[in-house]
Amino acid sequence: MAILLSTKSATMAAWRDALLEVDPSLEVRLFPEAGDPAEIEAAVCWTAHDMAELRRYPNLRLIVSMGAGVDHLMRPPGPPPGIPVARLVDTRLTQGMTEWVLLNVLRFHRQDAEYRAQQAARIWHELPAPDTAARRIGILGLGELGGDAARRLLALGFPVMGWSRRPKDLPGVEGFHGAAGLEAMLARSDILVCLLPLTPDTRGLLDARRLGLLPRGAFLLNAARGGHVVQPDLLAALDAGHLAGAALDVFEPEPLPADHPFWAHPKVVLTPHAASITIPRSAAPQVVENIHRAREGRPLINRVDFGAGY
Amino acid sequence: MAILLSTKSATMAAWRDALLEVDPSLEVRLFPEAGDPAEIEAAVCWTAHDMAELRRYPNLRLIVSMGAGVDHLMRPPGPPPGIPVARLVDTRLTQGMTEWVLLNVLRFHRQDAEYRAQQAARIWHELPAPDTAARRIGILGLGELGGDAARRLLALGFPVMGWSRRPKDLPGVEGFHGAAGLEAMLARSDILVCLLPLTPDTRGLLDARRLGLLPRGAFLLNAARGGHVVQPDLLAALDAGHLAGAALDVFEPEPLPADHPFWAHPKVVLTPHAASITIPRSAAPQVVENIHRAREGRPLINRVDFGAGY
Ligand SMILES: NC(=O)c1ccc[n+]([C@@H]2O[C@H](COP(=O)([O-])OP(=O)(O)OC[C@H]3O[C@@H](n4cnc5c(N)ncnc54)[C@H](OP(=O)(O)O)[C@@H]3O)[C@@H](O)[C@H]2O)c1
Ligand SMILES: NC(=O)c1ccc[n+]([C@@H]2O[C@H](COP(=O)([O-])OP(=O)(O)OC[C@H]3O[C@@H](n4cnc5c(N)ncnc54)[C@H](OP(=O)(O)O)[C@@H]3O)[C@@H](O)[C@H]2O)c1
Repeated sequence: MAILLSTKSATMAAWRDALLEVDPSLEVRLFPEAGDPAEIEAAVCWTAHDMAELRRYPNLRLIVSMGAGVDHLMRPPGPPPGIPVARLVDTRLTQGMTEWVLLNVLRFHRQDAEYRAQQAARIWHELPAPDTAARRIGILGLGELGGDAARRLLALGFPVMGWSRRPKDLPGVEGFHGAAGLEAMLARSDILVCLLPLTPDTRGLLDARRLGLLPRGAFLLNAARGGHVVQPDLLAALDAGHLAGAALDVFEPEPLPADHPFWAHPKVVLTPHAASITIPRSAAPQVVENIHRAREGRPLINRVDFGAGY
Repeated sequence: MAILLSTKSATMAAWRDALLEVDPSLEVRLFPEAGDPAEIEAAVCWTAHDMAELRRYPNLRLIVSMGAGVDHLMRPPGPPPGIPVARLVDTRLTQGMTEWVLLNVLRFHRQDAEYRAQQAARIWHELPAPDTAARRIGILGLGELGGDAARRLLALGFPVMGWSRRPKDLPGVEGFHGAAGLEAMLARSDILVCLLPLTPDTRGLLDARRLGLLPRGAFLLNAARGGHVVQPDLLAALDAGHLAGAALDVFEPEPLPADHPFWAHPKVVLTPHAASITIPRSAAPQVVENIHRAREGRPLINRVDFGAGY
């Protein structure tokens, strides 16, 4: 039996090598060179892979996402019925995201845009000291990524709130859930950080009305998925002066089209879906673990809940 | 008896109010309105105050620096002989500095200049993922500020080294001291963070030779004092491509002259001595504590060691 890899050609070899380092007995094939379809037991794939194609493999028993998100697997037609899907939960992935969140929270908190503008104008002028204890941070999604960001921001002295699907108790983090909880949290978030999975429930969440609930002068960080934000509504909120800035790593579509107004927007700091990059060597052990579990019929780790959609 | 305050007129009233809030029985005078010189028991002052002037107060028994540094008090002629000097050690001051250090470490670590340039050129391109465990950070000075920055950077997964005057053991931090220790640490510091006090021993420390010991492509952060760095040597190291960037909060002289090449240097990120700003309300209790201790002849807190110079 064989493992089918499907991702950008640039990272395919690194994934193969990483899997073989953990289990040299694996047979790894690089899409589209799948060989005999009956021999594929697991597909490890990233966003561009077509789910309909996976229906070609009669003995497939596992699909693994090469990232933390699985929205690319769940959109229609979705994975072949009955085949379980696992995602990645990985310390390096989490660490990368937490760094991206801290960099951008501190950028806004520490008035970096103003200081860069002052430097460009050769102005020596001390701005009012930012008050960490008064800068309220709201995090959408308190899972692997949102939970870690919450802990780090809390440790730095920021008051931290978080919104999750089910009620959640993280020490020191004020928890919210449900539609009313969302509105209550937005109204008090000086910096809002989106780390939700993209599901039918969360698509388009940050629209004009909800962005309008944020305090005037708030900042938005989105490193989850472009689909969480209604992009024209965000632009309007920035242009109206309601929001003071946005750090964006994800867009719809990606790559962000070259003529999109975000590129040159003075209040937008953007990165090309690079907040947290999967390192195959770091992620390979859990993928191999799941291949063995699938073979032996044992419960998968990091398994996606089809009901919840993530 | 009275307390003499001396700082920029903009912050004078905030200091007076903060001290009076802690001890309403204090009599506070704002320099140059000192009143009867014989009535001044303590001088709480910042960088511009002339030390020779303090010799006018025959009953002075305490000098307090309005910041963590005391180099402004120690330069000739120095404080009046026999009068003890205290400095500030304050959680908000430490927190502000740690934020400045984290923002700038993450800015360099996360290739922010490259991503900003790509945004300006509308280029969607993922750079190689930065490797936190391989980004070695060297901290000059492991005191209140350097020690806190070390702990935070360590918690984020960076390997951290530190240089102090006396051998020092911080958990997880590889410690160095002495001239040989400095050279060994510099040779391995991908990001060097200066948080030393300015003393005769540390003035001009970062000259061409020592900057040359850093690995090619290293970054420098200086939020201690401008005098730690030989500024023309730093410029040369940046221009030669030996250093990849510098984040500078302190200069000699300050304000940085408008025609200085740092302002428009593409590899320099500068802030106007604003890394960590003393908040009078936060600092007042320890100042009042020291006023009471000086009156009662008890040992001061945060007392400066004249022998060590800080
Ligand atoms: N930009 C990048 O480089 C990058 C990298 C990695 C991941 N990501 C994105 O980050 C997302 C989050 O990853 P993760 O590992 O943290 O996921 P996770 O562990 O599954 O956590 C998801 C969190 O979102 C909450 N949530 C889900 N649906 C919700 C709803 N309808 N209402 C309120 N809260 C809801 C969950 O609530 P419960 O706690 O109740 O389950 C959970 O707290 C991924 O799905 C991916 O899209 C982006
Ligand atoms: N930019 C800003 O906004 C700002 C704000 C606050 C402070 N500062 C600067 O930051 C400096 C440090 O403050 P701090 O509160 O951390 O001071 P601190 O607690 O006194 O710590 C000083 C550290 O430097 C080490 N050190 C002193 N002389 C040395 C020498 N000759 N060789 C090697 N190590 C030496 C000390 O070693 P030992 O551990 O052996 O004593 C100690 O670890 C201040 O002096 C000030 O100049 C700047």
